[in-house]
Amino acid sequence: MPNWLLPEHIADVLPSEARKIEELRRLMLDNFRLYGYELVMPPLLEYVESLMTGAGQDTELRTFKLVDQISGRMLGLRADMTTQVARIDAHLLNRATVTRLCYAGSVLHTRPSGLHTTREPLQIGAEIYGHAGLEADAEIQELALASLALAGFTDVRLDLSHVGVLRAILAEDANAAKDEAALYLLLRAKDVPGLEAQTAHYSPLVRSALLALPNLYGDVDVLKRAREVLPDLPGIAKALAELAALAATADNAAIGREVAVDLADLRGYQYESGAMFAIYVPGLPNAVLRGGRYDHVGEAFGRARPATGFSMDLRELARLLPTAERKHSIRAPWGNAPELKDKIAELRKTGEVVIQSLPGHSNEQDEFECDRALVLDDSGSNWILKNLG
Amino acid sequence: MPNWLLPEHIADVLPSEARKIEELRRLMLDNFRLYGYELVMPPLLEYVESLMTGAGQDTELRTFKLVDQISGRMLGLRADMTTQVARIDAHLLNRATVTRLCYAGSVLHTRPSGLHTTREPLQIGAEIYGHAGLEADAEIQELALASLALAGFTDVRLDLSHVGVLRAILAEDANAAKDEAALYLLLRAKDVPGLEAQTAHYSPLVRSALLALPNLYGDVDVLKRAREVLPDLPGIAKALAELAALAATADNAAIGREVAVDLADLRGYQYESGAMFAIYVPGLPNAVLRGGRYDHVGEAFGRARPATGFSMDLRELARLLPTAERKHSIRAPWGNAPELKDKIAELRKTGEVVIQSLPGHSNEQDEFECDRALVLDDSGSNWILKNLG
Repeated sequence: MPNWLLPEHIADVLPSEARKIEELRRLMLDNFRLYGYELVMPPLLEYVESLMTGAGQDTELRTFKLVDQISGRMLGLRADMTTQVARIDAHLLNRATVTRLCYAGSVLHTRPSGLHTTREPLQIGAEIYGHAGLEADAEIQELALASLALAGFTDVRLDLSHVGVLRAILAEDANAAKDEAALYLLLRAKDVPGLEAQTAHYSPLVRSALLALPNLYGDVDVLKRAREVLPDLPGIAKALAELAALAATADNAAIGREVAVDLADLRGYQYESGAMFAIYVPGLPNAVLRGGRYDHVGEAFGRARPATGFSMDLRELARLLPTAERKHSIRAPWGNAPELKDKIAELRKTGEVVIQSLPGHSNEQDEFECDRALVLDDSGSNWILKNLG
Repeated sequence: MPNWLLPEHIADVLPSEARKIEELRRLMLDNFRLYGYELVMPPLLEYVESLMTGAGQDTELRTFKLVDQISGRMLGLRADMTTQVARIDAHLLNRATVTRLCYAGSVLHTRPSGLHTTREPLQIGAEIYGHAGLEADAEIQELALASLALAGFTDVRLDLSHVGVLRAILAEDANAAKDEAALYLLLRAKDVPGLEAQTAHYSPLVRSALLALPNLYGDVDVLKRAREVLPDLPGIAKALAELAALAATADNAAIGREVAVDLADLRGYQYESGAMFAIYVPGLPNAVLRGGRYDHVGEAFGRARPATGFSMDLRELARLLPTAERKHSIRAPWGNAPELKDKIAELRKTGEVVIQSLPGHSNEQDEFECDRALVLDDSGSNWILKNLG
């Protein structure tokens, strides 16, 4: 096997793609900052127990594990950064006030989540800790939409859902509550025959509510329909009211976005605790961004703070952007003469890319297109720019 | 053991430090780009065989290893990115011309290199492939010095060395050549008694040359002294001439840097093949940046291309910079009114950080100092900025 071969679902990022990712990364982080989010950088590896805190079993199976030579304990490579950032809020910063944090970094998965998915996504996200009100959810949702819009993704679909609906239904029937995990999978697959079989012995109210959920998707009118067909429970009423408010907030902005509701889309149900959202862009079947409220995430670190946030994979998102144009640049001859060096430094200070040709090589870098050359004028004493054909 | 505890020599980076690192990272990458270096992003993990190619045994012991669930083969977490970038040049880009590449990413070490060293450095570096001449070494050295100067490190010391000196000496005596590894360690430690014992049975010429090396350090006059005390071998003459040229190049620039030569500083000797350099800044005993020529690095990937480059740890460098000042920002009330939202969006477009206070929380983020507030004017219809005490 040749030693330049990479493991499956692991890839190098070459210059044109790397440039797109880097620009997207800066654009997003700068926008988060304009909203008052502070950047943190959690480590690539931690003790397995810390990483698994509050995460579902899927995260555990997706986490690479290895032994720490120093402590002899088991370490995990982060498969998700959300828990790490919650740990920083709960334990390290330990502020009583609202804390807005953001992050960007690579995560690793033992297995890819899809046929064409990388095992090394570049996760970027933002979180608000310390505010339980819907205003924080609205800000997070706005920040997610605004950041995507800045990157050129204005034609998006926002899907809203809420864990409170299923939780309220299950609280009405102890049998159903026991089957939570199985019901979650059936709802996620919108498997109505499966749901009919599974719910046969539940109370009629719970059964009809569960069977109604897979059909409760579509535009915001779904919320009205949900109020009619779902049982009149306080948990459900609260969840539907929150979704209505979030849908209205999203509608406020004038860009061409579609708002949809899907009450059976419960991805993340295990660790979420309130409203959840997913954003879809044309050309990609899966959501590019997911977010929501997960208030209990800090609990295991000794401090249960309300939390809401979102994250996305920058590498996947960058692939959807057009290839960046080659950058116009200047070719300069090799030389150490102070006049030449000064002229080059001066041009670089104005943001020009200046590439000094190494003797014997006049070729340029692929990413840069030398449209001008630095040459001596006729007097032989001044360096001037000459346009290249 | 509390689950917020991190492994030894592994740490979170909190907002003020993260901001410094992020700014330094952008400054460096932007400067590399102005010189025509293209960004690449190699993966965090690879098959162990690929990572170990051309690297010394120290890298092997410092590399975390784990089993790939997909292939059943052994993977390594990169402990250094140099080999990865050489692989990209040799195999993926496969250009015939000069290629300038740069990179920035986390690497992981099984054990820290020092008492206060992180096991997760943030390595950043630049490389030139495809040019064997000294001009490439000079450009790399200039780029390293210029990038540090941009970051505020103008008061630096540049230490030059060259593997050609020891190689030429060892080629004269088969016994000495066999002891290469032991001699390397003794020279690195400047252990003269040890060297005397080790070299007792070597030829007098080789012995005296080896015993002279530990004293050949100091300012550039060392090169003159070296020409006198070292044997007149073509390899030594070539190495000393290269060092003289590089020292002159560094002297050219007008900033307050000191140039030194240390012919026994052979760190990296195993994989380097020509001139090497290290840059020191006040306040840190170890070099902040190391570079040099290592022409055979691509060989194992099927393409031996001349190569020269440097790398440094951004986290260590950032620690030496003063804490960034808190950013002046604007506090805005919560609200969804379009006039308020528009005003906020307009301010953010000009680069202002605007933090909307969530109801019940008027406190601000630690990194941002709200020196202005967005308030309604007396007429109650226009949003204006008010200075805060």
